[in-house]
Amino acid sequence: METFFRYNWMVREQWYVWCEDVPLEELLRPRMGGVGNILQTLFHIIDVEWSWVQLLQGKPDDAEDFANYQNLEAVRRFDRKLRPDVEVFVTAWDSSMEKRAYIDHRSAGKTSTYSWGEVMRHVIAHEIHHMGQLSVWARELGKQPVSANVIGKGLIIPD
Amino acid sequence: METFFRYNWMVREQWYVWCEDVPLEELLRPRMGGVGNILQTLFHIIDVEWSWVQLLQGKPDDAEDFANYQNLEAVRRFDRKLRPDVEVFVTAWDSSMEKRAYIDHRSAGKTSTYSWGEVMRHVIAHEIHHMGQLSVWARELGKQPVSANVIGKGLIIPD
Repeated sequence: METFFRYNWMVREQWYVWCEDVPLEELLRPRMGGVGNILQTLFHIIDVEWSWVQLLQGKPDDAEDFANYQNLEAVRRFDRKLRPDVEVFVTAWDSSMEKRAYIDHRSAGKTSTYSWGEVMRHVIAHEIHHMGQLSVWARELGKQPVSANVIGKGLIIPD
Repeated sequence: METFFRYNWMVREQWYVWCEDVPLEELLRPRMGGVGNILQTLFHIIDVEWSWVQLLQGKPDDAEDFANYQNLEAVRRFDRKLRPDVEVFVTAWDSSMEKRAYIDHRSAGKTSTYSWGEVMRHVIAHEIHHMGQLSVWARELGKQPVSANVIGKGLIIPD
């Protein structure tokens, strides 16, 4: 589980560096699909990752508003603020948690039950999916996107 | 590991159904980013998934040409042909394979060594990333994309 989180964090950091060369107006320009612009996508994946980890632990997931994070440095600061909570949880993950039940009450009037293992994979896939959207928008800007490769990052050293 | 493959296969089948309502010329129309069109993206993820699994096993990964698969039914047939090989490998996966070394000779003059665990996660992330691109192109067509949710698919039944 941890490997995919470390992968996502590495790719996310590379997207921040990529953003450094892009004017703020392009980072905020409305685009087709996803959550609609580049910077809000980064804000959104940080927010969603942290919120799910909070929810699993029965902790409050106070929503923050992207209106308060309208530049790259603010989004990076938001990430630095929330990442440690996620890291503690991910590092302590063990396979006995896979089938633990999480009851989702967020939709008014109905509940859904998910396993913790599903939720964690949901968080992982959520970020990768949104990075795929960024890759299209990068090409629209005439720029090469950040690589989505898992290989070549030294994530699992072979024997 | 198997959970993410099953997730990808479910999402892929949903994209096939999604494609049924889209004219072939739209499935083949050149688009920005990724491998450049919707149908070739589906062909590409099938091809890459199978090829990596063949390579890990030291089997030939004879490249096929998308030129021979220019409609939805042909791509589905391609998937039905290759999926069983992948399923056998994924179902037999166990954690002792994670750090097994794979030596990649594909770049002329240099080799790279990856662990099998990295390669398998690469295959997983590869598909999710490309599905993110499809989701943008779907919106460009005015259509709702297939959901990327991992939750709600019954992949890991909670205790």
